[in-house]
Amino acid sequence: MIIIMKSGATKEQVTTVIDRIKDIGLDVQINRGKEQVVLGLLGDTRNVQDIAFRSYEGVDTTIRITNTYKLTSREFHPQDTVVDVDGVKIGDGSFTTMAGPCSVEGLEQIRETAQIAKEGGAKILRGGAFKPRTSPYAFQGLEEEGLKYLRQAADEFGLKVITEVMDENHIDLVARYSDILQIGARNMQNFKLLSAVGQTGKPIGLKRGISGTIDEWLNAAEYVAVSGKSPVIFIERGIRTFESATRNTFDLSAVPLIKKMSHFPIIVDPSHGTGVWDLVPPMARAGVAAGADGMIVEIHPDPENAWSDGQQSLNEKTYHQMMHEIQVLNTAMQEITSLEELTVRG
Amino acid sequence: MIIIMKSGATKEQVTTVIDRIKDIGLDVQINRGKEQVVLGLLGDTRNVQDIAFRSYEGVDTTIRITNTYKLTSREFHPQDTVVDVDGVKIGDGSFTTMAGPCSVEGLEQIRETAQIAKEGGAKILRGGAFKPRTSPYAFQGLEEEGLKYLRQAADEFGLKVITEVMDENHIDLVARYSDILQIGARNMQNFKLLSAVGQTGKPIGLKRGISGTIDEWLNAAEYVAVSGKSPVIFIERGIRTFESATRNTFDLSAVPLIKKMSHFPIIVDPSHGTGVWDLVPPMARAGVAAGADGMIVEIHPDPENAWSDGQQSLNEKTYHQMMHEIQVLNTAMQEITSLEELTVRG
Amino acid sequence: MIIIMKSGATKEQVTTVIDRIKDIGLDVQINRGKEQVVLGLLGDTRNVQDIAFRSYEGVDTTIRITNTYKLTSREFHPQDTVVDVDGVKIGDGSFTTMAGPCSVEGLEQIRETAQIAKEGGAKILRGGAFKPRTSPYAFQGLEEEGLKYLRQAADEFGLKVITEVMDENHIDLVARYSDILQIGARNMQNFKLLSAVGQTGKPIGLKRGISGTIDEWLNAAEYVAVSGKSPVIFIERGIRTFESATRNTFDLSAVPLIKKMSHFPIIVDPSHGTGVWDLVPPMARAGVAAGADGMIVEIHPDPENAWSDGQQSLNEKTYHQMMHEIQVLNTAMQEITSLEELTVRG
Amino acid sequence: MIIIMKSGATKEQVTTVIDRIKDIGLDVQINRGKEQVVLGLLGDTRNVQDIAFRSYEGVDTTIRITNTYKLTSREFHPQDTVVDVDGVKIGDGSFTTMAGPCSVEGLEQIRETAQIAKEGGAKILRGGAFKPRTSPYAFQGLEEEGLKYLRQAADEFGLKVITEVMDENHIDLVARYSDILQIGARNMQNFKLLSAVGQTGKPIGLKRGISGTIDEWLNAAEYVAVSGKSPVIFIERGIRTFESATRNTFDLSAVPLIKKMSHFPIIVDPSHGTGVWDLVPPMARAGVAAGADGMIVEIHPDPENAWSDGQQSLNEKTYHQMMHEIQVLNTAMQEITSLEELTVRG
Repeated sequence: MIIIMKSGATKEQVTTVIDRIKDIGLDVQINRGKEQVVLGLLGDTRNVQDIAFRSYEGVDTTIRITNTYKLTSREFHPQDTVVDVDGVKIGDGSFTTMAGPCSVEGLEQIRETAQIAKEGGAKILRGGAFKPRTSPYAFQGLEEEGLKYLRQAADEFGLKVITEVMDENHIDLVARYSDILQIGARNMQNFKLLSAVGQTGKPIGLKRGISGTIDEWLNAAEYVAVSGKSPVIFIERGIRTFESATRNTFDLSAVPLIKKMSHFPIIVDPSHGTGVWDLVPPMARAGVAAGADGMIVEIHPDPENAWSDGQQSLNEKTYHQMMHEIQVLNTAMQEITSLEELTVRG
Repeated sequence: MIIIMKSGATKEQVTTVIDRIKDIGLDVQINRGKEQVVLGLLGDTRNVQDIAFRSYEGVDTTIRITNTYKLTSREFHPQDTVVDVDGVKIGDGSFTTMAGPCSVEGLEQIRETAQIAKEGGAKILRGGAFKPRTSPYAFQGLEEEGLKYLRQAADEFGLKVITEVMDENHIDLVARYSDILQIGARNMQNFKLLSAVGQTGKPIGLKRGISGTIDEWLNAAEYVAVSGKSPVIFIERGIRTFESATRNTFDLSAVPLIKKMSHFPIIVDPSHGTGVWDLVPPMARAGVAAGADGMIVEIHPDPENAWSDGQQSLNEKTYHQMMHEIQVLNTAMQEITSLEELTVRG
Repeated sequence: MIIIMKSGATKEQVTTVIDRIKDIGLDVQINRGKEQVVLGLLGDTRNVQDIAFRSYEGVDTTIRITNTYKLTSREFHPQDTVVDVDGVKIGDGSFTTMAGPCSVEGLEQIRETAQIAKEGGAKILRGGAFKPRTSPYAFQGLEEEGLKYLRQAADEFGLKVITEVMDENHIDLVARYSDILQIGARNMQNFKLLSAVGQTGKPIGLKRGISGTIDEWLNAAEYVAVSGKSPVIFIERGIRTFESATRNTFDLSAVPLIKKMSHFPIIVDPSHGTGVWDLVPPMARAGVAAGADGMIVEIHPDPENAWSDGQQSLNEKTYHQMMHEIQVLNTAMQEITSLEELTVRG
Repeated sequence: MIIIMKSGATKEQVTTVIDRIKDIGLDVQINRGKEQVVLGLLGDTRNVQDIAFRSYEGVDTTIRITNTYKLTSREFHPQDTVVDVDGVKIGDGSFTTMAGPCSVEGLEQIRETAQIAKEGGAKILRGGAFKPRTSPYAFQGLEEEGLKYLRQAADEFGLKVITEVMDENHIDLVARYSDILQIGARNMQNFKLLSAVGQTGKPIGLKRGISGTIDEWLNAAEYVAVSGKSPVIFIERGIRTFESATRNTFDLSAVPLIKKMSHFPIIVDPSHGTGVWDLVPPMARAGVAAGADGMIVEIHPDPENAWSDGQQSLNEKTYHQMMHEIQVLNTAMQEITSLEELTVRG
């Protein structure tokens, strides 16, 4: 951590800051430049709020050099973490597809969807039983009944299950039916929930918050990582920007960036990332090419009559066509990565 | 609700959409323009997802005309709601100040702050006992001990209490000590929590989410409103934008906008809205002039040694000076509103 | 265009609006719903400002149905426009690379870069001679000298040239040396400049503004299209959002979206889109997979000593490796598009 | 300027960077911490691109400490600059209003508006003769005819004139008719135009770009400041964010922030800042209370029939009422500033 004093800071102001640094048990390196004094803090600054020093007289700004997400960081864990979902691997170089409806609407609907998902090559079935909705008057999900249908349909077609847990009190319930616990975008910084799901040992699918920075996302993963034994799967699902032609702005650069900064795998969600079904296949392809470890995608046997998110769901035909495209591109990506190391300049 | 068909939509596509509208129990008005067919849905469309129709072939777009937040809307409740916090009124034309530290750090610190708050003219004491923090390694609050100190300090100086409840399981606990339950920005769309606090009957201080739209905020208030007896106090605290010179972008236009759309009062939080202590007084003044019903502001007896948010906290001297400025401007505002009706064009 | 009256609008207010519609030569269709009156405007509304009607008493909102960019729209020009840059085709299904330094720094530097570009497979040489810079004290470009070097280097290695024109008064000058005229992000809505370059007949590389919406971008292209004979090449280069881990947020969804809405080709700029050199190759690959018609990329023989944008420039080795990856993915994309039609649901 | 090396940077990498720093004529201070080496650059770094160093192997990041806008900065010019517009002062502690229509539509319209403006207390008449419009098919202004009408109307009622110059080639023309030259939001970074208007000696009204950061805005002012004798008047007019309930997000915090960082005055534009006429008066009041030096506001004798921006224009009655409110609040502000120094903590 570095503290930059203002150009007009007095000796006394500098001394006050130095004393405070020593008070909290750190050493300090003092650099007197022509215009400003710059203080370097030595020691473990992970628990020190850099911003707190900004309230001191004479301090211009502070800069945090060391990140605060040790267990999530690739720095201390250089090898990729491969998440094993009861035999299905995520992060091992393959491209894993999770597919299913936005909402579980009934047993027949989810069975039909599971069959389509499986035939297209998905390994994991998605589907919402508890639905967070902007309006209190909108459909809120089938709850436990939905979880049962989801598990039954997945088992029938040899798929694993991912579904969202919205509430600390539902963790045990959801964990009985689901192989991966998903944390939705609205809960990316629900820290109690993060700590609690981290204790289940199940893999956690951590969606990026609608306005979550990369740094906040990595710190949210750290709440899972410190709390227990659960590995994290990052899910890029688009961020909120001024652009309204798409539902969100799908930030695909997050894929190589997270891979650089963390050892946990990252998958993409082109359905929420774009919000428009005919943009889903090209963005799914782009996800493969950017190096994602998989995707989660919304499909429905009859999108026009879906109870939610029909406008961004693929039907059987378009899903199967997309999965074929994914396969062709994935083969090309395998060829690239088998021949070469990760691109390094120098 | 209005559905606009594409210019090349076929008769069959139009019929499919009309049939679906009738299926869900609504009437439809068909308008055939030169280029497009436009369908108007008649009946109660509050529970109909307009976006669902976008998945139909031949549909260009859909437009929701009626809002979905009936109980929060001024349309159905034209008079201002005045919130009565055990005798302290919010929304009655006065300007109510809530002041206190970011975190309760101990009994002496909160007593000292309560005294400063009271002497400056605040009616309500703020202070965090449960702190949501981006990093799991940062200070997370004194929890119940903090609540006790907060209540004791407030009682000693004749103040009411506002503090954040982050978790459904803590509602009873927090409600024992606090007069107003605050929902933090990260929980604006934690719908289970909103429904639960709405059943306490206590006033709910609802912070705007860091990327919450006005429409989402009004819908979040609706979760409180439909769930029970609690009135809502909106708290504008800044939104996330590209600008990094301030901690957030303080969206003061929300004040007259919320007043136009809802009957519940709105207060401002210039501390989080700007994140820099010397921008707090001018933005507090601006809040008065924009017509806010009050403010919530961070103060600390010794900001340089605060455990959190010191950089945006006022000390005794600057807080008292700001409160004097507020008073002068508030008197001017009273003069304006006593002479005139709300500005109306026409 | 549709005008939605407020639920409490009076008969007189409705009549006033209808009269105004007729005054400007349009017909109107009146739809009286249970809650609101909705007016549909019939006739050519391209020149009518929908927003103007919002100032009328009793009007709730207005909705524009027809877009305002007729010549740019795919609706009136369903076939792809293939841009022919003196023999190099853009938009014909191939993937065309434009590569070169941010700034032309001297003859040797640009010759060396041109050779690297050519060997990697680029067809077009980029390089800045006039540089728009945030600070007036930063290097502003070699101007005409730079243009000469750029042309000479391109000719020596059989490449075409793209470079930015920042100023109406420089169009003739730049057009003497460059095959494509680039409009920079800051000038996306410099309407005089757009109109003027449109009269040259040269292809216009139109960068998206840093906060340009898709709709504004299409309208900017229309300024070029109506002004003369120049075709447009859209260049997605990232937008400004709250995320600061990358220089911009690279909005790859713009690729399929622009292809859906316009007949002009679109290429991607992963250098500015990410701002970090090691994110450039994965995002270039993603661009291929998303269906872009090409890319523009910054390369430099010695990025560490580049006069500008060194941090986002590839050196010879990383550029060549990326170009190999691009080629493998492009072959895969050819296979996909030869077997299948564009994904269509239904 | 500070360069932070990665924790694993080699000795050789550190030496390469140090050599480069010395090459460009600067001294360097080397700080070896436990985890990282931090380099401080000594000397005039105003012309050094900090970002360039990020392309070096082993460099983690760079931090610029000294700003790049010397002439605009308050640091080197502590006293407020008072702009004198032919006798009308801006920045002297008064609150100056500029009012007028979006577009000059004809002589009668601008004369009528000038009379209203004057009677309400405005000192300066605004009005657009050259209109930048998103669509090429929209009304583009009366051009020189409009300038003549504007001047004539202003002179008749004893007002000064502000109008936009969009094009370097029009500077002489516009300067013949206007007392202040306005640079529109789209041209905030049109650096050639900024340099050129700076040479006229006329005050420059510099609108903030729709996505312009505070830092970019200050640098844009520097282009004016270094180019000649013109003083700058900053105009805050809202920025583009995700919120669509208002036309822009009016960033009022910019007022105290710019006053802290620069000696030039700043005024507010609540018409563009909100885009909705009934939000204009409360936001104008908020501008006074935040400490702005004045405002620019759109008024029209008949907003419902305005050729542009009618939805955000005030009519005679609402404008006069707002001006009364402004006056009351301004008197209160005078009282505050006469009694007290600027709020300073400590």
